[in-house]
Amino acid sequence: MDNKKIGQHISRQFNEEMEDIRHKVLTMGGIVEEQIEQAAQAFMQCNLEQAEKVIQKDDLVDSLEIEIDQECTEILARRQPAAFDLRMLIATLKIITDLERIGDESVRIAKMTMALEKTEYYHDKYHEIHHLLDLVKGMLHNSLDCLARLDADNVIAIKMEDEKVDREYGSIIRQLITRMMEDPRNITRALDVLWTARSLERIGDHSCNISEHVTYMVKGQDVRHISCEELEKVINKQ
Amino acid sequence: MDNKKIGQHISRQFNEEMEDIRHKVLTMGGIVEEQIEQAAQAFMQCNLEQAEKVIQKDDLVDSLEIEIDQECTEILARRQPAAFDLRMLIATLKIITDLERIGDESVRIAKMTMALEKTEYYHDKYHEIHHLLDLVKGMLHNSLDCLARLDADNVIAIKMEDEKVDREYGSIIRQLITRMMEDPRNITRALDVLWTARSLERIGDHSCNISEHVTYMVKGQDVRHISCEELEKVINKQ
Repeated sequence: MDNKKIGQHISRQFNEEMEDIRHKVLTMGGIVEEQIEQAAQAFMQCNLEQAEKVIQKDDLVDSLEIEIDQECTEILARRQPAAFDLRMLIATLKIITDLERIGDESVRIAKMTMALEKTEYYHDKYHEIHHLLDLVKGMLHNSLDCLARLDADNVIAIKMEDEKVDREYGSIIRQLITRMMEDPRNITRALDVLWTARSLERIGDHSCNISEHVTYMVKGQDVRHISCEELEKVINKQ
Repeated sequence: MDNKKIGQHISRQFNEEMEDIRHKVLTMGGIVEEQIEQAAQAFMQCNLEQAEKVIQKDDLVDSLEIEIDQECTEILARRQPAAFDLRMLIATLKIITDLERIGDESVRIAKMTMALEKTEYYHDKYHEIHHLLDLVKGMLHNSLDCLARLDADNVIAIKMEDEKVDREYGSIIRQLITRMMEDPRNITRALDVLWTARSLERIGDHSCNISEHVTYMVKGQDVRHISCEELEKVINKQ
């Protein structure tokens, strides 16, 4: 028997296992992206059918999380990976936690939409969250793109988008408080918008986390809790 | 040279490394427990000194997270652990993420308290959150206790406490909405209580997650996203 071939075979199988995991994480990311879009549209248009789709996808997201988690653990036990492979597995364990929580936030929005339908606010369009939604969708998309290309170049841009998200969120909250004070009849509606805005802001945070995990994977350095300047040094390091 | 001795020595050192990690996680847990208590007291008594203590501890919590994370990764690379050791390391990576987020929620409450002082609501006591605070503190304490004793017996009780937390949280929100509607001058104050209640509710969720990670560590089975009945079967399995 040709040992070299076995060696190659084992290595090829290992590569396939790693590729399979990355593929599944990106699939999970795609589903979660759909959930955000559908949840926000459901909320803005009081579309119950869309809201139900978001909730239906929750089980799929949960089971992908558990499946990927198990595969990572098995590879850690069987292959004793080192260097990039080890970092990829550890980062993946964290990325799927953030993706699952993003899914949960979308489900929160969808469930609130289901409750809304019963109220008077049926024909209201909840347009306030439009810009925030676009920002947050962009952040998640770019984070998943970093993962797909195994490239940390966009991480600083994503971090700066998160600052925009925080400003936009703050501005929505202030507007809502003013509106509530002007007329208490606006309170219930304003609180619905407030919860949705809060969920979107959280989704922005989780997207930022994902881009940090990809940076750790690619650059081998933990970049959580550091400033944009320090982050830039890590990214530009060869 | 006596190979057996080397073997024992390596194993003893390995044990020490694992114990060191568990000790650090429990230390991190203790700090985070203090943060919750101080943040809630700061909020209820508008005590800026307490609020500052919470914020000061944030860096320590962040650096413990990074330190424990690195130690787990190094052991995974060097020791190629299996079975319980592997599960302990993977669960630890997740537990410290939840602890760090609990710390973040306390910092949120503390920062809001710092902003409060400037308003009219100085002498208000914000007592509404008292019961919720007690429930959530109990949940975190019991979860950390499970980790300290490597025992999953209390996990079902913690999960049931989380249901109490959700009910208490819902009841606070309804009361606050009523009060806002009765008198719009209550709105700002009510929203402060609302954000604090939301943070506490999240801390309950994270505490629940920690107890699930300990169950995975001890019982070798992923118990996220399952019902209380299924969980009971896992816990009672020898």
